[in-house]
Amino acid sequence: MARLVLKFGGTSVADVARIKHAAAKVAREVAAGHQVVVVVSAMAGVTNALVDYCRSTAEQADPAECDAVVASGEQVTSGLMAIALQALGLKARSFQGWQIPLVSDDSHGKARIDRIDAERVTAALAQGVVPVVAGFQGVTPDQRITTLGRGGSDTSAVALAAAVQADRCDIYTDVDGVYTTDPRLTDRAQKLPRVTFEEMLELASQGAKVLMTRSVELAMRYHVPVQVLSSFEEAIGSDLPGTLLADEETNMENRPVTGIAYSRDEAQITLRRVPDKPGIAAALFGPLARANINVDMIVQNISADGTTDLTFTVAKGDLARALHTLESAKADIGFTTLSSDSDVAKVSVIGVGMRSHAGVAATMFKTLSERGINIRVISTSEIKISVLIDAATTELAVRALHTAYGLDAAA
Amino acid sequence: MARLVLKFGGTSVADVARIKHAAAKVAREVAAGHQVVVVVSAMAGVTNALVDYCRSTAEQADPAECDAVVASGEQVTSGLMAIALQALGLKARSFQGWQIPLVSDDSHGKARIDRIDAERVTAALAQGVVPVVAGFQGVTPDQRITTLGRGGSDTSAVALAAAVQADRCDIYTDVDGVYTTDPRLTDRAQKLPRVTFEEMLELASQGAKVLMTRSVELAMRYHVPVQVLSSFEEAIGSDLPGTLLADEETNMENRPVTGIAYSRDEAQITLRRVPDKPGIAAALFGPLARANINVDMIVQNISADGTTDLTFTVAKGDLARALHTLESAKADIGFTTLSSDSDVAKVSVIGVGMRSHAGVAATMFKTLSERGINIRVISTSEIKISVLIDAATTELAVRALHTAYGLDAAA
Repeated sequence: MARLVLKFGGTSVADVARIKHAAAKVAREVAAGHQVVVVVSAMAGVTNALVDYCRSTAEQADPAECDAVVASGEQVTSGLMAIALQALGLKARSFQGWQIPLVSDDSHGKARIDRIDAERVTAALAQGVVPVVAGFQGVTPDQRITTLGRGGSDTSAVALAAAVQADRCDIYTDVDGVYTTDPRLTDRAQKLPRVTFEEMLELASQGAKVLMTRSVELAMRYHVPVQVLSSFEEAIGSDLPGTLLADEETNMENRPVTGIAYSRDEAQITLRRVPDKPGIAAALFGPLARANINVDMIVQNISADGTTDLTFTVAKGDLARALHTLESAKADIGFTTLSSDSDVAKVSVIGVGMRSHAGVAATMFKTLSERGINIRVISTSEIKISVLIDAATTELAVRALHTAYGLDAAA
Repeated sequence: MARLVLKFGGTSVADVARIKHAAAKVAREVAAGHQVVVVVSAMAGVTNALVDYCRSTAEQADPAECDAVVASGEQVTSGLMAIALQALGLKARSFQGWQIPLVSDDSHGKARIDRIDAERVTAALAQGVVPVVAGFQGVTPDQRITTLGRGGSDTSAVALAAAVQADRCDIYTDVDGVYTTDPRLTDRAQKLPRVTFEEMLELASQGAKVLMTRSVELAMRYHVPVQVLSSFEEAIGSDLPGTLLADEETNMENRPVTGIAYSRDEAQITLRRVPDKPGIAAALFGPLARANINVDMIVQNISADGTTDLTFTVAKGDLARALHTLESAKADIGFTTLSSDSDVAKVSVIGVGMRSHAGVAATMFKTLSERGINIRVISTSEIKISVLIDAATTELAVRALHTAYGLDAAA
């Protein structure tokens, strides 16, 4: 017998028929002898509709009141799921965030979980009841309703799994797992049966939008095995049909690279002839940070004549604001020209095996060079190498790297 | 400065535009120096949609889970109303039933209020905040969400008004008050500026569907003045444009009859040649009560030959079940024939003045007789006289009585 947390996202509970379908999966896990906690999102589209209500009531709607409005979406699904489970002969009851309680800070709209008192949930489990938790919701110590921000229901599920010491947290969604690369770019992409949390973090932040970074971080911190799987397929979580995110194991397949990620949401900024003196990085990146603009890849050339060239990337949506911020700070920074290019893409190879395999970077540069792909910027972490290239060569680069690292599915 | 509870029903908060419109009325009361608590229903149609979700998930849906689902409707409106009030420059915050708390028993779907801890609401008032309470909702001592049944938001409003010792509870709805009779039957009907609670109870139970009996009873018990008024008109509650329900006052207008009510939801049952012996009423009405069928007007003729004829009325929707129940108990009751007629109507004249005015009944019988209207059954209470007549003569009877008791509006 295992203790499982099963989380069903919006498309998995999109209507009453889908809720019943999800309930049947829960029932199969219970029939297999497992203790199950269910976490549900709002029915697909409901959260957006509720947010629209708030925005059309006032342009600057109070985040605390928006939370009360928006949290109602998960409340509905939790009740309906409990009803659907009861119709299958199970004992079940819904729990709202405040009923658990799942205590958060008061950063309405993007609250952080402070603690979960899991006692009522585990007491329900002990009585053979399936607790159905409304995801996305928290409650402040002052009894106000909060929501946990984007991907909040995944965060709820992982945090609950940690709190009830679950053996696994299954995230049912509309994709069937994590792939070696985006299957839309190459039909040779393969589903990964297993990735480490660190790899998933790099994959997620590099553009594989399966799970939000925050829930992966939480799972890593509390060592909660998380499976990503599809609710649209027949298999249930205990069949392990999806991708398991888990701690690194010594007996893991000995591959240098696990997956290739890419992002076209990048823009490159170059400042020429910046005075090469102490404090210049602060003068440059300080104003950007204060404008809440994240800077990603940074390259500084060796200084030649007392000045240097600086290149870095920002999110495409931040480019205009970044350029404006830099122009305003031109006197402090002292560059001669400022140029930008948003027709770029970042391609990353990711794998914990990199730590023990030499030559991963060399393979990447050689592969891209053979295809005539020019590398603009390089950045690396312990388990990732990223390059900035022309956007038009993204697909070519991903396919070539996928083959070079032996990730292609058998034809 | 008065302390007011303003309740807005479903059509008064049907969409964002209507919510803003209602918020403007609240703002005018606050600007006039009053302390205001707002109580809101779900947006029109939402509750029915949520109930349908529950029913389509399971035929016998758990009432506790249905309550969690259905209560979300008022949660949305309370948040949106708070946002709309803030947009008008007021301080406002929403309160769910559990946040007040409004503690109820666990009769899910039709819970009774046990107590209201008004401390948080009055603390908000003291800070100049407009508390916006989600109507219809309660919470059990065990922290489960409940709903208060049909007309529950009115009940919430009146109970809150009692708990915060409000000077008045204004029920904003889609009618502008209580009339001397149904304005659809005669254009001579007049809006009553004031009725007593007892009159309103008779009017409500006799078919004037403005306020549910339960909230009127509550207002009467706690002496909460309640005004029924339209949210679709310009006037606000403090202008007293509607009908005020209040305790009887000695200086009230000295009229014998306040209003004429009617109901076509009646069916007449007659049993002939029932043995006139002790215990026969129990044999007859016991099985009906056990079948949960309410019996209304009852007439028993004087016994002639050791048998008697019995006539009574039931709700039209209960007629088939009532007849079946009586046929099944025929051996115990011992009647010879059982007949029924659902083509009947009950017309009632109502007024606390009846207590001190003689001849009210005589006027009624004379008026109907002059119009050739046959009276089948008569029943009376201290402030009401009801007659059962042919359904086809309802309008004629109501108009004639309206004129006879001097209720007609000036032409």
